[in-house]
Amino acid sequence: MENSFRLTRVGVTGILKPIVVRRRGRDNHLVAEIDVFVDLPSTQRGSHMSRNVEVVTEMVDESVRARVESLEQMAANICRELLARHDYASFAEVRMTADYFLERRPPGGKTSLEPFKLIAKATSRRGDGLMKSIGVEVRGMTVCPCAAETARNIILEQVRGFEKYSAQVPMVSHNQRNRTTLTVEVPENVEIEADDLIEIVEGSLSSSTYGILKRKDEANLVLRAHRNPRFVEDVVRDILGKLLKRYPKLDDSVHVTVRSESEESIHKHNAFAERVTTLGELRSR
Amino acid sequence: MENSFRLTRVGVTGILKPIVVRRRGRDNHLVAEIDVFVDLPSTQRGSHMSRNVEVVTEMVDESVRARVESLEQMAANICRELLARHDYASFAEVRMTADYFLERRPPGGKTSLEPFKLIAKATSRRGDGLMKSIGVEVRGMTVCPCAAETARNIILEQVRGFEKYSAQVPMVSHNQRNRTTLTVEVPENVEIEADDLIEIVEGSLSSSTYGILKRKDEANLVLRAHRNPRFVEDVVRDILGKLLKRYPKLDDSVHVTVRSESEESIHKHNAFAERVTTLGELRSR
Amino acid sequence: MENSFRLTRVGVTGILKPIVVRRRGRDNHLVAEIDVFVDLPSTQRGSHMSRNVEVVTEMVDESVRARVESLEQMAANICRELLARHDYASFAEVRMTADYFLERRPPGGKTSLEPFKLIAKATSRRGDGLMKSIGVEVRGMTVCPCAAETARNIILEQVRGFEKYSAQVPMVSHNQRNRTTLTVEVPENVEIEADDLIEIVEGSLSSSTYGILKRKDEANLVLRAHRNPRFVEDVVRDILGKLLKRYPKLDDSVHVTVRSESEESIHKHNAFAERVTTLGELRSR
Amino acid sequence: MENSFRLTRVGVTGILKPIVVRRRGRDNHLVAEIDVFVDLPSTQRGSHMSRNVEVVTEMVDESVRARVESLEQMAANICRELLARHDYASFAEVRMTADYFLERRPPGGKTSLEPFKLIAKATSRRGDGLMKSIGVEVRGMTVCPCAAETARNIILEQVRGFEKYSAQVPMVSHNQRNRTTLTVEVPENVEIEADDLIEIVEGSLSSSTYGILKRKDEANLVLRAHRNPRFVEDVVRDILGKLLKRYPKLDDSVHVTVRSESEESIHKHNAFAERVTTLGELRSR
Repeated sequence: MENSFRLTRVGVTGILKPIVVRRRGRDNHLVAEIDVFVDLPSTQRGSHMSRNVEVVTEMVDESVRARVESLEQMAANICRELLARHDYASFAEVRMTADYFLERRPPGGKTSLEPFKLIAKATSRRGDGLMKSIGVEVRGMTVCPCAAETARNIILEQVRGFEKYSAQVPMVSHNQRNRTTLTVEVPENVEIEADDLIEIVEGSLSSSTYGILKRKDEANLVLRAHRNPRFVEDVVRDILGKLLKRYPKLDDSVHVTVRSESEESIHKHNAFAERVTTLGELRSR
Repeated sequence: MENSFRLTRVGVTGILKPIVVRRRGRDNHLVAEIDVFVDLPSTQRGSHMSRNVEVVTEMVDESVRARVESLEQMAANICRELLARHDYASFAEVRMTADYFLERRPPGGKTSLEPFKLIAKATSRRGDGLMKSIGVEVRGMTVCPCAAETARNIILEQVRGFEKYSAQVPMVSHNQRNRTTLTVEVPENVEIEADDLIEIVEGSLSSSTYGILKRKDEANLVLRAHRNPRFVEDVVRDILGKLLKRYPKLDDSVHVTVRSESEESIHKHNAFAERVTTLGELRSR
Repeated sequence: MENSFRLTRVGVTGILKPIVVRRRGRDNHLVAEIDVFVDLPSTQRGSHMSRNVEVVTEMVDESVRARVESLEQMAANICRELLARHDYASFAEVRMTADYFLERRPPGGKTSLEPFKLIAKATSRRGDGLMKSIGVEVRGMTVCPCAAETARNIILEQVRGFEKYSAQVPMVSHNQRNRTTLTVEVPENVEIEADDLIEIVEGSLSSSTYGILKRKDEANLVLRAHRNPRFVEDVVRDILGKLLKRYPKLDDSVHVTVRSESEESIHKHNAFAERVTTLGELRSR
Repeated sequence: MENSFRLTRVGVTGILKPIVVRRRGRDNHLVAEIDVFVDLPSTQRGSHMSRNVEVVTEMVDESVRARVESLEQMAANICRELLARHDYASFAEVRMTADYFLERRPPGGKTSLEPFKLIAKATSRRGDGLMKSIGVEVRGMTVCPCAAETARNIILEQVRGFEKYSAQVPMVSHNQRNRTTLTVEVPENVEIEADDLIEIVEGSLSSSTYGILKRKDEANLVLRAHRNPRFVEDVVRDILGKLLKRYPKLDDSVHVTVRSESEESIHKHNAFAERVTTLGELRSR
């Protein structure tokens, strides 16, 4: 066979399926977008594409009878079955994303459901166990520390006498919508709650954001956020610090990826920070 | 013929073409995304799809020899030619969008090229002249007036003595990236400059935004923007007011559409305002 | 107040909410993206934005207790409540979209869930009743009739003797993914099933598409589709014809919009056809 | 400093700039979307974000005076300057994409400009030279070999006598739009032409696609494509084979990534194949 090269990933992308996940005793109805891949040896012309969607469909149906506990558990089940059905493959990978909702209450305000995103992955090399990756995307607010400080200095020069009150009056800055993703990759038997990862990210931003804010709650949120200004760099580092504290027993080999992107209100482009690392690297700092 | 219904629009969408437009003595090299349509009488099964792309291609080639003056003029030329080649059609429509750059300088800062978007359209009913529509999309910043006022009241209660300085110290609020579009539809012989529409939109936001801002320029921009807070409602109305002043001689029948959307920093959703109207309606207010 | 112009639409866009709709005795868990608007009189500076999200949230919570029957019914409920809470408004509009799944079985194959999209809308002018709009988006396949015919003529010239079999052997053509949307707007008390609209669209394409197709089912689908070639023009007209037959009692004033777009496999651009009309216009053809 | 972790990438994303690249004696006016990053040591709180856009702007201005030869050369220039201005950084990365047009003529048809995409990257570790990556995205057509074969067998069973003509009459199959990307990473002093990579990809699909196709050209393209059916797996492997032949002198260490995705006309999901490798690995097969 001419051009008989091995292929790294062969599969299907963009499968849409309704999935039910039972978390902490509550059914979550998710609409998952799913990509599945196996590798292909040089000796085989094509992969059996229809098997992929068959596996996904059967695992989704199966989960209706016996609830899975998480999106990443579903990814792991599909991944294992892919290797079983593609006997020529030595590697399988499953990626899933879904909108996800949690109850949130702004200080002083009313509870409602806020949207987040789950990002699950499972990979397996034949005979080598299975890794699953639990990920979340959170939208929140960042306030720029630098503009606030410079603005304060300008105001202090312009407004004589204001220095007495300066420490108590938070200063204007640019603030904006921020999207941060946090992903942790662990062996299959280790459990990490996506809800906990979402909490870690929310706690590392200048402020969480909410669907409903009454006038006073809105102003208080803005004031608190300006007393807690954060660069995207700060957001990523705070998340890394919180991870180390929250999971002291997780193995050094665990992979962690954090990405934070602020849709800058003073620019037409975005600010971005990222760390790709292992817990071991972080601990040996 | 069964189901011999007239069709409102038949054509092709998503044609990508490089186009050169000569504006104010300067060549602008644009990458335009183009949709073209004609109507189809009930007596004809299919439209001649390949003619559409032929017309677009010839008009684009033609424009290399004899520069057109604007994207909407190009749309008009294509529109006219569509009616000429589809003799069964009584209506033609062309839509074009392209990234567009203008030099901008933040107060105290350095000049650079800022990106905007052109949105051009031409429509023609056979025997009934040609209308062209000149549109722009501008990204800028809005600062919320309401959060600033409530925050000020909270600070005034908390910080005794601050009232002396309150008028001089701009108050924190939420601010964010805003996208505003302005479209004006005129007969073919009337000229409107897209650059002027961009200026009108930029002048109606809390602030323009810039690629490069040195520390002090950034803080000054933030301070100015907070002294000029705007709801999306204000943005749309200011644009309408400025339009009336800028084009006193434009006919009452001219159509105007303004849309402003703020990607709220305190919410995961956006705030939106719109006015669809004619100059006559606006003037008879 | 300077620039005191009326605004056509003021509101919020991009609200994400999990919704449960009970259709034909079965709970459908949907993730809806929601836009809500009211108009704003010239005498009022800003709309009460937070009321919009409050109304959406309450109506969604309410629907958990007393199931709504459709996305458009949910849209109608929100629309009515918007007018109640924004007493200065004379107009309200709600738009909702959601992924939606139905069981489908390819001839000879296995049943699985296929993804579609629901597109619901409700609009109301104060004192003037409420209109709701039921819409669907369907992905399927179109085969080009023209390329098949020309290819047949070429083959007939090249292959002497083939003419005996020509009528029985379907000819190659280009085929591709197609996206078609169908929207019907009716008064609030009239019921139209989205599932029926999906069936009408699926029946008007060259073929439905399926997640799982075994080798023989795939080839049979391809053969059937090539015996049923369709331009986008044909797709739109077939849908219009089927609508008239399916809903003989619907009022002449009912608005209908059909759009079909084929992601052409032989071009980098798409083919498009559209009809915007009323049932009355269609009947008087 | 608490949480003083090193960051892998800090920078800005989504800068839009008009760029002129002189290739083979012809000026190409591109609109580039640009992301730039440096790393950040644990000892430094924030990166100097505005320097990034300054560097991009100066390099773009500079290129107007002294034309660069390629998008990847522009990326390399920006990358080098990023390390010069961020003295605390040990790593820099620049990513750029732009629509790009080349003249193409379908057999028998007319020449016109077809759109492609350039994907350039440059990375540098301080003191360790600079790697640049030249990439292209091509849209074309794939025809499924498997459905064609099964359909032929079905027709051979149904139509007695057709076997005599079977070898000469291409059989129906599903065909669709395909997007394939090819990226090659080389040291800065090595030159690879993006135009050549585009040719390699186009030559590995079932067929190139064209803006304008007259009736007969369209049918001939369809016939040729059906005589050249390709799985996504075949597309990726053909590209790998052609690369080895085209660049026999390129070093074994050169990285290559090929991804091919077919927007299946019989499914709502896509088929995907990928190889991530080095020339050395490919050669040692």
